[in-house]
Order: sequence, then C-alpha cells, then structure tokens
Amino acid sequence: MKPPAWRQDRALYPHSVRVQTRYHDEDRLGHVNNIAVAAYYDEARSQLMRRTFELTKGLTGVRIVTADVRVSYMGEVFHPGDVEVASGILRIGNSSWEIGQTMFQNDRCVGVCSTVLVQASAAGAGAIVPELRAALEQLLIVAPSPNPTRPPASPAPD
Amino acid sequence: MKPPAWRQDRALYPHSVRVQTRYHDEDRLGHVNNIAVAAYYDEARSQLMRRTFELTKGLTGVRIVTADVRVSYMGEVFHPGDVEVASGILRIGNSSWEIGQTMFQNDRCVGVCSTVLVQASAAGAGAIVPELRAALEQLLIVAPSPNPTRPPASPAPD
Amino acid sequence: MKPPAWRQDRALYPHSVRVQTRYHDEDRLGHVNNIAVAAYYDEARSQLMRRTFELTKGLTGVRIVTADVRVSYMGEVFHPGDVEVASGILRIGNSSWEIGQTMFQNDRCVGVCSTVLVQASAAGAGAIVPELRAALEQLLIVAPSPNPTRPPASPAPD
Amino acid sequence: MKPPAWRQDRALYPHSVRVQTRYHDEDRLGHVNNIAVAAYYDEARSQLMRRTFELTKGLTGVRIVTADVRVSYMGEVFHPGDVEVASGILRIGNSSWEIGQTMFQNDRCVGVCSTVLVQASAAGAGAIVPELRAALEQLLIVAPSPNPTRPPASPAPD
Repeated sequence: MKPPAWRQDRALYPHSVRVQTRYHDEDRLGHVNNIAVAAYYDEARSQLMRRTFELTKGLTGVRIVTADVRVSYMGEVFHPGDVEVASGILRIGNSSWEIGQTMFQNDRCVGVCSTVLVQASAAGAGAIVPELRAALEQLLIVAPSPNPTRPPASPAPD
Repeated sequence: MKPPAWRQDRALYPHSVRVQTRYHDEDRLGHVNNIAVAAYYDEARSQLMRRTFELTKGLTGVRIVTADVRVSYMGEVFHPGDVEVASGILRIGNSSWEIGQTMFQNDRCVGVCSTVLVQASAAGAGAIVPELRAALEQLLIVAPSPNPTRPPASPAPD
Repeated sequence: MKPPAWRQDRALYPHSVRVQTRYHDEDRLGHVNNIAVAAYYDEARSQLMRRTFELTKGLTGVRIVTADVRVSYMGEVFHPGDVEVASGILRIGNSSWEIGQTMFQNDRCVGVCSTVLVQASAAGAGAIVPELRAALEQLLIVAPSPNPTRPPASPAPD
Repeated sequence: MKPPAWRQDRALYPHSVRVQTRYHDEDRLGHVNNIAVAAYYDEARSQLMRRTFELTKGLTGVRIVTADVRVSYMGEVFHPGDVEVASGILRIGNSSWEIGQTMFQNDRCVGVCSTVLVQASAAGAGAIVPELRAALEQLLIVAPSPNPTRPPASPAPD
C-alpha cells in the first residue's frame, strides 16, 4: 500500500514548482500543519493542470473533478522556507487519471501525494477527450524499469 | 482500492461533530474547495483525538504523528450549511492506527476519509502504550459482518 | 481614533452568529491567529449581507466591494470554543456604508471590527439603490445617546 | 481618515517581499478574497518583524501583541501572480509602534495596510526596550516633506 520508493525521486517528475510557506501555516508545535502541506500539493496540482490545458491548445468545455487525494507525510515542513513540489501524471485510465507528486524542503523529501481526477460532464464521467489525453501523455512520470508506470496489464485507476 | 460501501454508513461511527462551512471556503465554481473539505475532516479528527485522550484519563508525553491521509470525494459540499463528520477507529496496529471518517451534508454522503496516525517518540515509532490502546478500542467502528473491521488475519496498518 | 466603548456592547447589535474556531486556527503560541479572527468577522459579515439582501426581497445586479476593514484586537481567542460575532450597520453614506461588529468568547469581548463597503457598478461607485438603503436601515446599530450613530452633522463614510 | 497618497509609493518603504497567491485564495468572483489579501500583509509583516529582531542582535523575552490592523482595499488581486508587499515602520510611540505597508500586483497598487503593535509583558504594556526601539528606527518609512512621518507635534499611536 505504501508508495514505492522511486516516488521520492524528484528527477523523474516532468513538472516542478516552488511554493512559499507562510507564517500562519505553522501549528503550535512549530511546524507547518498537515492541511497547509495538502494545500501546497494542491497549488502545484493546479499549476500542472494549467500546463496540461496549455498543451491542449485551447480545449474548453471539459470539467475536471477531484475524486481522491492521498498524502503520505514523511517529514516535517518548517517555516520560513519554500518547498519544491514535483508533479506529473502517474497513470491514465479511461475517464480518469492519477497525478503523482513529491515534496522537498532543503533537499529532503517530506512526502508524496497521489490524486485521482475524473473528466466529468453533465452526463457523468466520460472517456477522456483525445486532446486532453495527448496533453496528459506529455506529462507522464517515467517510472524506473522494475516498476513500470504503465505495464500492459496494469489496471486503470477507474 | 475504493473504500467499501459500509464506510458511508454514518450510524456505524461512534463519534460525530458538526462543522461549519465558511464563505471563503467556496471556490470560483461556487462549491467548497477540496482543501476546506480536508480541513473539516481534520477538525473532526482533532476532536476525536481529544476524546481519545480524555478516555486515557491523563496520559501525557505521547506524541502523535500523522503518516497518511486519504480523502475520497463523493459529492460536492456547499456553503452556507454545516457538514456532519462521523469518525471512529478503523484499525489498531502495533505502533499505528487508522481513523475512518465519513462526511454528510443535508443527509447526503459527500465522502469518506482514512488517516493513519503513528505514536512516535524521540527514538522513533514504538508500540502504542496500553492506556492509549484501551482508549482507541473504545472508539472502534463496528464494521458489518462480511467486512469485519478486525478479522483475526487482518494485516495491521504498519 | 479608538472605537468608542459602547462598540463592545453586543446588546446594541441587531444580528448575531456563532462561529466555530478550528484546531488549525491556532498559532504556535496556542491562541487563534489574527487572520483567523479576521476571517470570523468576515464570515459574520457575509451572513449579515445575506440577511440584508433577504430584506431587499429580490434585489439583484448590485455589486458590493469591500473598501476598508479595521480589526481592533482586545483579547486572545482560544480553541476549542466558539466565538459570537454581533454585527450591524454603523453608518450609511451616499454610495457606501459601514458595518460594525464585536466579538465575544465566553462572555468576554475580544475585539471590534469596522468595515466600509461600497456599492459599485461598471461605471464606478454610485448612490445606494433605495431597496438596499431600506434594508440597511433595518439593520442599524442603535448607539447610546451621548454618542449617536447618526448625528445630523456626522460625515458620511464616503 | 484615508491613508495619504504617498502611502502608495512603494519606493518609500525600506522592506519588500514577494508573496505568492494561491489557487484557493480565489473566491467565486475569480479574484483573491479579502482574507487572503490580509494574510499576504500579515506574512510580509512577520518577515519585517523577523528583520527587526535580527537588527536587535539577539533581543529575547519581548512579547509583541497585534492591537489593530486596518486594510484599505484599492484594487483587485488576481491569481496566478505574485504580489509585492512593501513594509516599514510608520510611527514609534511609547509602548507601541505602527507598521505601514502597501501592496502591488503587476506594478499596480492594490491597497495599503496599517498595523499597531504593542510591546507587552506579564505586567501589561511597557515602554519599548532600547534595543527594539533602535531596530525599529532603522526601518522607518521616510514620508515626503509636506507630510512628515514624525513631526514634533505628532501624537504617538498610543
């Protein structure tokens, strides 16, 4: 159930952003609280999705719904200090896809995050439209060989 | 991988709180954003843990670390309107335990959440102290029979 | 410059709501941080404005802009524990009005807040429309006599 | 009552930081909500105070309490995009001082903020200790001549 170790290798992720921590993200123990950390992943995800839509060159009318977010906390985050969030596409299914992320502070991995997103319409979930699928494929994380990201028999996330 | 359907049955959870939504939890689509929803689960968890420590009748010196949080979003949350978060202990392992939660708004289930917490000390993770274990056991979720919460052969979360 | 003492008398305000504090509103000193307190006032204001629009019985097309918010912190706020925020209209000018608020926790006043709102349109600020003015007048704070809220010579906030 | 126009001249402020806006700071109207803007000022203030304490070369045991915060909103803030917050000391009184700030986004002034802080001890407010006063003086905003920051007859903020 634990994310594989290679998920902590930020060099494998195609997208990276720095996110500022804030004074009020600290809790009474003097470290950044879990919800603030979840918000940093969320902010990096919103930038990855913006990049994805740029790659579609103008796709509109597609609605994206967050179905599932899992954050694994592996180290404390402190303020002041930025975090680096590396992000990419982990798997692409029929109507959904999974974003993988890892967070670093001062070159120390502080966690990984996996998020399942669904393409939805008024009629419910539907097959990912070709322009979006092509854009997602450009942002795939290339997992190391023994743990291929998309082995032929891999179950899709949906 | 999906949480079993009984996880959406709030009657099975021993602890319940109402959490207020806030105007600024809304996003530009007019529903409460995912991070705010994660914060509602977090607030309910902090109340469950406070209840747990009350049940230990004075346990101190134990540090709890959040290791893993997974939120499954099943429906949109709107403001204004409270949410009800039902919480309980899903599994108890050697040094960690899992909290299960489900959220309702207007009698509609909007999601479930699973959180792994670890008892930590300066020396790292250690076996849950007896007072804390006894308190956690009083707050167990009683899963329906075909899906027993603690079958004899169940793997502990750690 | 300081708000007059009667501003701390919650009985003078026509509108009151309870707002829950949250675990993550606490800072590292163990009290609720200033931004969270500002957010409680903001939440109560949004409810006062919702009430105002209910009183207009269907006014639409009016855009409200926040021009100025001043929070005077008079005591610490703690979690767990709700706060009570009492709100009302302090002054009504030509195109703007001022909301007055005071916050209590456990029957102790922890501060007051004053907010100037402006009715705006694409063309800029304009005179408050009659339906809105009538609704605002129903929610006026009645200041004690030596400090009348609306003395004849009082300058309007705009 | 309005802050003087020179308060929007960021060149007059001795301290400046860039603060990232976040996706979830947006409200349903598509601009950054007022509380998030207040939090950006707050974050810049915490950095100014950190700088102040660095200038004291090791002062400890002094507790600072926020007494009053006033934010004047002059333009909308949008995401994505950083804001620049320029900060400095506006006035120094006996036991309190005032921080002045102005915020820019894309070279457009979007507001100013004034904050009164008090040096407190267990016994209540007390005269600012000399090390702190000397540090605050190094961070004064130099107001233009017709509106001197510290005219001889100017009332101190406390």
